[in-house]
Amino acid sequence: MDHLIDITSLSDEDIRQLLDDAEWFSQQSHIPRLLKRKVIVNLFYEPSTRTRLSFEMAAKRMGAEVINFAAQSSSVVKGESLIDTFLTVQAMQPDAIVIRHSKAGSAALLASQAKSGLAIINAGDGTNEHPSQALLDGLTIKQHFGRFEGLRVVIAGDTRHSRVATSTLKLLSRLGVESIRLCGPQQLLPAAGTFPGVELSEDLDAALHDADVIILLRIQAERINDSSLPAAAQYNQHWGMTIDRLGRLPRQTVIMHPGPMNRGVEIDSEAAESSRSLIQRQVRNGVFIRMAVLRRLLCTDEGNESDWRAADL
Amino acid sequence: MDHLIDITSLSDEDIRQLLDDAEWFSQQSHIPRLLKRKVIVNLFYEPSTRTRLSFEMAAKRMGAEVINFAAQSSSVVKGESLIDTFLTVQAMQPDAIVIRHSKAGSAALLASQAKSGLAIINAGDGTNEHPSQALLDGLTIKQHFGRFEGLRVVIAGDTRHSRVATSTLKLLSRLGVESIRLCGPQQLLPAAGTFPGVELSEDLDAALHDADVIILLRIQAERINDSSLPAAAQYNQHWGMTIDRLGRLPRQTVIMHPGPMNRGVEIDSEAAESSRSLIQRQVRNGVFIRMAVLRRLLCTDEGNESDWRAADL
Amino acid sequence: MDHLIDITSLSDEDIRQLLDDAEWFSQQSHIPRLLKRKVIVNLFYEPSTRTRLSFEMAAKRMGAEVINFAAQSSSVVKGESLIDTFLTVQAMQPDAIVIRHSKAGSAALLASQAKSGLAIINAGDGTNEHPSQALLDGLTIKQHFGRFEGLRVVIAGDTRHSRVATSTLKLLSRLGVESIRLCGPQQLLPAAGTFPGVELSEDLDAALHDADVIILLRIQAERINDSSLPAAAQYNQHWGMTIDRLGRLPRQTVIMHPGPMNRGVEIDSEAAESSRSLIQRQVRNGVFIRMAVLRRLLCTDEGNESDWRAADL
Repeated sequence: MDHLIDITSLSDEDIRQLLDDAEWFSQQSHIPRLLKRKVIVNLFYEPSTRTRLSFEMAAKRMGAEVINFAAQSSSVVKGESLIDTFLTVQAMQPDAIVIRHSKAGSAALLASQAKSGLAIINAGDGTNEHPSQALLDGLTIKQHFGRFEGLRVVIAGDTRHSRVATSTLKLLSRLGVESIRLCGPQQLLPAAGTFPGVELSEDLDAALHDADVIILLRIQAERINDSSLPAAAQYNQHWGMTIDRLGRLPRQTVIMHPGPMNRGVEIDSEAAESSRSLIQRQVRNGVFIRMAVLRRLLCTDEGNESDWRAADL
Repeated sequence: MDHLIDITSLSDEDIRQLLDDAEWFSQQSHIPRLLKRKVIVNLFYEPSTRTRLSFEMAAKRMGAEVINFAAQSSSVVKGESLIDTFLTVQAMQPDAIVIRHSKAGSAALLASQAKSGLAIINAGDGTNEHPSQALLDGLTIKQHFGRFEGLRVVIAGDTRHSRVATSTLKLLSRLGVESIRLCGPQQLLPAAGTFPGVELSEDLDAALHDADVIILLRIQAERINDSSLPAAAQYNQHWGMTIDRLGRLPRQTVIMHPGPMNRGVEIDSEAAESSRSLIQRQVRNGVFIRMAVLRRLLCTDEGNESDWRAADL
Repeated sequence: MDHLIDITSLSDEDIRQLLDDAEWFSQQSHIPRLLKRKVIVNLFYEPSTRTRLSFEMAAKRMGAEVINFAAQSSSVVKGESLIDTFLTVQAMQPDAIVIRHSKAGSAALLASQAKSGLAIINAGDGTNEHPSQALLDGLTIKQHFGRFEGLRVVIAGDTRHSRVATSTLKLLSRLGVESIRLCGPQQLLPAAGTFPGVELSEDLDAALHDADVIILLRIQAERINDSSLPAAAQYNQHWGMTIDRLGRLPRQTVIMHPGPMNRGVEIDSEAAESSRSLIQRQVRNGVFIRMAVLRRLLCTDEGNESDWRAADL
């Protein structure tokens, strides 16, 4: 494992280990400074609160140096291409580049050009993937249920354009959940057959009747304003987690959301703040997943892989 | 003391200790690394040079990690509310959040939602308060005069809308100065009775005749352009610290300004750069006050409070 | 040497030592943490990828703390002048300020106001100078040829307005290259006599016929769109490093570019990526040059200057 680009590239063993390591980090009162003298560049071409902060928090708690690069205040305004910016950053010899970009495939492109010793981490590439988000979703479900087998998962919202939906459903399939159902208005569902074995439905209540997990995705403002789509209030009534729907959920169902939330659109405040909500837990786990990813990719020269947790750092 | 929200919430002992500790920091040739492994998030929704830099300088000199979050490059552009952004940041488990926001009460709101172990520090909330600025003003006066008793302080400018004026006059009242006079055009003075015991006046020269301290506040461009207000040149003549007025100041009077300055409006360059000016000293003290605040809020588990200065870190 | 403002202010010994030290840093597998407890402020009033990143990378690898200040998110939007912002930052007692500003002379202005103990480093001041870029160009040429004597250097592009051209040609003259020729359309060449001993030419092919080094400068979009200038395609044909021209270069000629590149304008992709290109090497060397500059300016109290490389840090 040299990079983190997408879920498909991870072996089952990679996934198991990343979830285990993140769980281990979540239990430490002092995070070991495993990344001392490592330098990580955050290369963000799209706005981000949680992902950038989460990677930065993980890296700094592990002792790394972090350099932030926000596209708008850089040579990008002079028209430099992604690949030239990348080659420039790479020539400065950082240990990892965390990349978010609006173009699908951008992280894979960088990985294909990366020299040995530089890890590329995909923090979201267009509508393609957001693998660390999927891993934190997986960890959150594993912590809550203690298993993946037999779980029924519903993902509601814009599953056609969402990199979170894509990465998360690929991961949960790999991890052995019983079923995944995508739910939303016709225009926001992927084409039939895009994800084999995944059910598509426009009827959220039917999908929820025996769900263990409901993952609500953010409806982006530009889509809310698309006249061919239901207005926000109507979306909320049909596909949002309303108080009413919250009251009818099966006993075991938990609510997840990758954030940022549109309260009153895909989720009502009462649902976001209810005892069924794992949303804060997802954010918390995000830091531990990123610690596990950074350790895996950057601590490669410290002898026996299985011994790293015992190292006195 | 769990947070720093406003002057009113501080006890007399808190204030005394913060000023003492800041003075102590100002005398060290090596700042002890008391904040090792602490992570501080700067959450700034308004532009800032000095306050953000000052907190970052204080934190880094004490060994903390700092994560900057500027509203414009974040999920805020996707419409996320302050409280959701806060809950997200909090879930990542920083040790402190330094918040600047245009809405009065925003820091108190975060403090009311903060879990144990997270300190909220108000770096300016709308027209409400800016307590660390008041503390640095207090320290600067204390260093210069060696006392507060008997001092006559004039605050000139937009004292109606200024969080600096509010925090500083509250603090100086608590510290026992003899008098505080607010001075400026009628429209920029607070309503009579807003601050009991504080004098209001439109006549700067009368107010200054026996002043020990004159604090000049920045006139904001949007107010200068308000047609109901005097133009910049006229403001300068009536309420600015001109060369002429500088020449007529009592012997002991010192000049302060929280910055950024509008030279030629509320203060002329000659006054800003004169030997009576404590403006650079205010900036310098700002770092030490923030060190004292951070130490007080974040070093809570290190045994005997009174012993921290002796700790060999 | 208290500051790095321009090439003229450097002694021959300064230049020799900076190049030597940078070469030494480039050979270390572990960069010594010579800048522990030092604080460096990056004060950037213009967009930058490589220069800001390069200084930050150098500083952090040497153990310094870095505080970034981007003009657009600061008090600059409130109209504060450069000098007032500088005085504020200086009062917070950083060890160095790295300044980029659109006004020629701005770095020298800050140096003239700097107190003892504060180093000012010019990261580009308008059309004036960019000395660390010149030094990294010098190091790259030295590494490749092992000497400066006898080398023929061509600088092509907007040599009239380029701070890179100015700094680099001054440095290479000092270092003893045999000839420097500036090449480009008439309007982009400096006035005759601006740089004594330097040849001016509109004919790139003639200039290149016996060149050892060709440095291509970025043509800025605003100049490309200037109607009195050749269009991009025409510029490329006459003054760009095209595939055709690449094929006709003398055997020994190497290609350099300070970046960011306009591929297809002043340089074709094949030339940028050819084995003759030293462009990545320039970027890599940039970090080492900045390490040498920071060490020279900030490590002043550690005893015998000649011993610093042996220090066990």
